[in-house]
Amino acid sequence: MEFISMVELIGTVAFAISGALVAIDKELDYYGIIFFAIITAVGGGIIRDTLINENLPAALANPVFVIISIASAIFVIVFYRKINRYTNVLQLFDAIGLAAFTAIGAGVAAENRLDMPFVVITLALLTGTGGGVLRDVFAKEIPFIFRKEIYAVASITGAAFYYLIDRFTGDGIAMYSCFAITLIIRLVCIKNDIHLRRIVK
Amino acid sequence: MEFISMVELIGTVAFAISGALVAIDKELDYYGIIFFAIITAVGGGIIRDTLINENLPAALANPVFVIISIASAIFVIVFYRKINRYTNVLQLFDAIGLAAFTAIGAGVAAENRLDMPFVVITLALLTGTGGGVLRDVFAKEIPFIFRKEIYAVASITGAAFYYLIDRFTGDGIAMYSCFAITLIIRLVCIKNDIHLRRIVK
Amino acid sequence: MEFISMVELIGTVAFAISGALVAIDKELDYYGIIFFAIITAVGGGIIRDTLINENLPAALANPVFVIISIASAIFVIVFYRKINRYTNVLQLFDAIGLAAFTAIGAGVAAENRLDMPFVVITLALLTGTGGGVLRDVFAKEIPFIFRKEIYAVASITGAAFYYLIDRFTGDGIAMYSCFAITLIIRLVCIKNDIHLRRIVK
Repeated sequence: MEFISMVELIGTVAFAISGALVAIDKELDYYGIIFFAIITAVGGGIIRDTLINENLPAALANPVFVIISIASAIFVIVFYRKINRYTNVLQLFDAIGLAAFTAIGAGVAAENRLDMPFVVITLALLTGTGGGVLRDVFAKEIPFIFRKEIYAVASITGAAFYYLIDRFTGDGIAMYSCFAITLIIRLVCIKNDIHLRRIVK
Repeated sequence: MEFISMVELIGTVAFAISGALVAIDKELDYYGIIFFAIITAVGGGIIRDTLINENLPAALANPVFVIISIASAIFVIVFYRKINRYTNVLQLFDAIGLAAFTAIGAGVAAENRLDMPFVVITLALLTGTGGGVLRDVFAKEIPFIFRKEIYAVASITGAAFYYLIDRFTGDGIAMYSCFAITLIIRLVCIKNDIHLRRIVK
Repeated sequence: MEFISMVELIGTVAFAISGALVAIDKELDYYGIIFFAIITAVGGGIIRDTLINENLPAALANPVFVIISIASAIFVIVFYRKINRYTNVLQLFDAIGLAAFTAIGAGVAAENRLDMPFVVITLALLTGTGGGVLRDVFAKEIPFIFRKEIYAVASITGAAFYYLIDRFTGDGIAMYSCFAITLIIRLVCIKNDIHLRRIVK
């Protein structure tokens, strides 16, 4: 199994679990919990594929990530009371998911010859953060990433590096660098509690 | 007039009325009421057509369902005080709408040769429930179908039967079976007040 | 610089500023402020391009409007305390934006030979108002345009005139007429505090 597939898998599980936990927090029923798991995990990719006019979003053409999301949701339903102890693990997994999805989004842009810097960054960002935004909209919350975390910024920086590195080396190195940079920025910010500024009214 | 067209018409009216009633409940203006009627009735089909990359969503290519939605909204505006007495009729109509739109969504998947089970079910579910989800998002509510009704489950089950029956017989029988199964599950659950479980925190 | 490009520029700035102000009001961070500015300014066009199946939304193919939006957001961040004095100017700019985007949306419909009246009006309306709807959904508000302003109605009327005039004269005259009619209706309604009716429960 390739490294990028492995981190994509970890990311899918992490995103699905975060969706399921939000759904439980909002007292949704089992269908709601499963739907939130799926949309958080594959929503970003669906937005990306819709914008670049794919014939069918990857998540529909290949159901494996939806199946993983459903399995993750069932896992959360069964072990709900035990999961809350592992917040740190979930945050690490979520950061891996952000990094993996950012790298994959940038890779999809390059594959489709949409390799203008602005497009690479936008598609990477949407792939990495779109699912969480949909989750929060459905949960009637202002999306988490707009509020106070260095989350989107990690994704944007990683994608910018993808673009730069991809010009000089191959796809593979660009993808791993993007993954590593996004992950490191995100983890450093969690660890040191670094946030973007807001305007005090 | 074909049977499926007739139930589609009933479903459009029911969905449009439900949208208009939510808009009135939220104290929106006339434009808001009409827009909510339209988006509830045709929103699911638009999401479906966008995902499968149609050149133009069916609701735009053929305005008849939008016109029916506008007429339904005007009907609600005029007869608002009398409609509330007929909650039972509206629930029956809404169940017909769910069943009709589910069958149509599954049929669109088959027509476009997207006949993998997962895709058929997803497109049927999105067609049947997408409009209501958009309505609730715009109304600043957590979508109704995530909370406590056997609604999506009826649609998913109906679509699964579509897929199975479509493999052995023709499109037509699959469509009517899907319609009937979705409708019956939904009505039985309304009648007996059956809900999906939630997790008690 | 063509007149329509100039008003598009003014409209982009006005929409971006309105997005940034909503984000500040919701106490979002710098990323949130910039994202809200972008999505308000280019969201309507992205929805339009997605529905008509463009290979890449105009806002992605050409980043100039996103760059203008980011610059507008930074301007708001720096001069936040002074901007509030100029509500009237912002309302005028916003009306110009609505009129410009409506005209551009109608023009895109005509360019793509989607010149059925219903499609022209829908695409014009989505281009003119879609960004504001997305802004309000992300801000956890029921979209402003559904509540109590003659906003969508101005856009719809302008687009209807576009369709009528386009049949007898050229694109250019239709576009300017659409712009002028939308702008005038919107300004007259602001000036005289005219609203659509609501239903009193």
